[in-house]
Amino acid sequence: MSDPRDVVVLVGSLRKESYNRKLAKALIALAPAQLRLEIVEIGSLELYNQDLDDKPTQAWTAFRDRIRRADAVLFVTPEYNRSVPAPLKNAIDVGSRPYGSSVWDGKPGAIISASPGAIGGFGANHHLRQSLVFLNIPILQQPEAYIGGVDKLFDEQGGIANESTKGFLGKFLTTFAGWIERNAPR
Amino acid sequence: MSDPRDVVVLVGSLRKESYNRKLAKALIALAPAQLRLEIVEIGSLELYNQDLDDKPTQAWTAFRDRIRRADAVLFVTPEYNRSVPAPLKNAIDVGSRPYGSSVWDGKPGAIISASPGAIGGFGANHHLRQSLVFLNIPILQQPEAYIGGVDKLFDEQGGIANESTKGFLGKFLTTFAGWIERNAPR
Amino acid sequence: MSDPRDVVVLVGSLRKESYNRKLAKALIALAPAQLRLEIVEIGSLELYNQDLDDKPTQAWTAFRDRIRRADAVLFVTPEYNRSVPAPLKNAIDVGSRPYGSSVWDGKPGAIISASPGAIGGFGANHHLRQSLVFLNIPILQQPEAYIGGVDKLFDEQGGIANESTKGFLGKFLTTFAGWIERNAPR
Amino acid sequence: MSDPRDVVVLVGSLRKESYNRKLAKALIALAPAQLRLEIVEIGSLELYNQDLDDKPTQAWTAFRDRIRRADAVLFVTPEYNRSVPAPLKNAIDVGSRPYGSSVWDGKPGAIISASPGAIGGFGANHHLRQSLVFLNIPILQQPEAYIGGVDKLFDEQGGIANESTKGFLGKFLTTFAGWIERNAPR
Repeated sequence: MSDPRDVVVLVGSLRKESYNRKLAKALIALAPAQLRLEIVEIGSLELYNQDLDDKPTQAWTAFRDRIRRADAVLFVTPEYNRSVPAPLKNAIDVGSRPYGSSVWDGKPGAIISASPGAIGGFGANHHLRQSLVFLNIPILQQPEAYIGGVDKLFDEQGGIANESTKGFLGKFLTTFAGWIERNAPR
Repeated sequence: MSDPRDVVVLVGSLRKESYNRKLAKALIALAPAQLRLEIVEIGSLELYNQDLDDKPTQAWTAFRDRIRRADAVLFVTPEYNRSVPAPLKNAIDVGSRPYGSSVWDGKPGAIISASPGAIGGFGANHHLRQSLVFLNIPILQQPEAYIGGVDKLFDEQGGIANESTKGFLGKFLTTFAGWIERNAPR
Repeated sequence: MSDPRDVVVLVGSLRKESYNRKLAKALIALAPAQLRLEIVEIGSLELYNQDLDDKPTQAWTAFRDRIRRADAVLFVTPEYNRSVPAPLKNAIDVGSRPYGSSVWDGKPGAIISASPGAIGGFGANHHLRQSLVFLNIPILQQPEAYIGGVDKLFDEQGGIANESTKGFLGKFLTTFAGWIERNAPR
Repeated sequence: MSDPRDVVVLVGSLRKESYNRKLAKALIALAPAQLRLEIVEIGSLELYNQDLDDKPTQAWTAFRDRIRRADAVLFVTPEYNRSVPAPLKNAIDVGSRPYGSSVWDGKPGAIISASPGAIGGFGANHHLRQSLVFLNIPILQQPEAYIGGVDKLFDEQGGIANESTKGFLGKFLTTFAGWIERNAPR
């Protein structure tokens, strides 16, 4: 059997007790053998400023190098103001520059959006998709993952309390594994 | 005659020689007597993190206070990766929290998006509009302002070189002034 | 007291027992004295085709005339395939042409989206908003109205069974009445 | 060599002399050997109405059968009112129902949007993409195709007059052929 695919997980919220971070951790535990998920931190990335393109900060360089090595990207994000949270958009912008050396190009991706409310981050999910077109990230379409009521999702060990959601997320990851195989750069 | 309306201008790019900053400055010069435009800086705002809601940074507090005093908001922005640049989304997120004390609520707004390419920031323009629904910023619909070829827009003094664009922007600001009068909080 | 404002209601679904049609009827009953709501039918409008611009169908002409007389527009719509249902988009397209004689221009508008699922038509709601920018329909921002679980919303007389939703919709209509007063053409 | 892939082309405008129809025809001529493109008409499809789900019209049934046989879908569309033209949205809605028997499921897709203006149908392009998520149409990301100035695109024989656009469209179709191979249902 071949090595598992290296899947970078980007979490849209910087809050320590973030539900989306918990969800990302639960996903790591649920991942099938073909995938190895790892959260990559984005909270210390300075705001993107093109003036720094020829003297990038250490945090930018480390982040870009890490993404460049990855096989695929999984976004796990809340919605802020009906769109992508600034820290996640910043990570995307930082990784996309300087022009012509984007680290995202061609890496298969998938999105899970989650919120305590009923709507499950629909607005963030689809705004993110619009950016991924430009970045040439082939994106998993189905199953869509809008996770509402995320504040009630976890058991005391941080696992997914609800069996049907657990099954859904497992199936999501398996489908994503197939998507990566079909669309990974070759 | 009454005092001019205090209109905060937020520029989506942090680059010093940003075309959008130049455009914002040209707009200040073009503004009709009813409006006083002022650029408010967003580049030193730390990335929004809910954990800081009860110990906000100085930069956050100063920014929030400044927006709170404003009568209206004008967004002048490029497009990054088919959406709102991270620094501008961050300013929006910072101003919107903590929950229940958003500084944006009810202030009339307008958007000018600009890019060197032909499309003129359409994606950023409309993603921004989706956030403004949630933030309850009544937003000017027409004229829409997608400024393409912004790199060739200015004369040597930083004015708008092209008479038809200059006329368009002047009309835009006058229409915005009427919009503010109709929709300012009372 | 002045005459009530004439508010045209467009229902996005053509199904006879449509939940959105029921919702529109319930809204008519809930409307405050300043507003008179009337459903205008869109199901017999032929698909928009520019070749007919100089020989419009009877249905097109009657529809355009009715909208032209209206003071404001209320959209009540489900979501089809994460966007605006075709019949509603068709009514919008028909009303917008021929170029230069759109019937929508300047009429204040508001949107209620509704679905049996939890998300409440978020995608339709915001795609519709993007069209309204071009059509110069000043659009109510808050309260946003995403009505989930619409299949369980009604009592046996067709009223809103749930008191909190009823209160919300009443407040929505009152806020819309204020929006119309501020933004109606003058 | 295997048979060419059967690619259905849907044209968003019903106008006889539609630029997008001309573009679709030019694409047929430009298609690489692996693809056979065919325009499927959508102008006589009745507006979607769920009440007809158990007695579908002839036009609906013929359309659904044709899409079901296809290997892939290419959308060539203008923008109406910053979104997808009603006739194209209607074809999408008709093909997606009744629930559980969508004809779109899993068929690879690509989008070319075109307009006489500079923006090239950006709004239609991305609204369409949001629908394709739900319909599970894996969608080509790059190259994006926003064709501005489409009214000046053709030579007298209906070919693409401009060599650089012709080269771009040829490359687009070749990339789409690779996309279909990777993502066609198996």
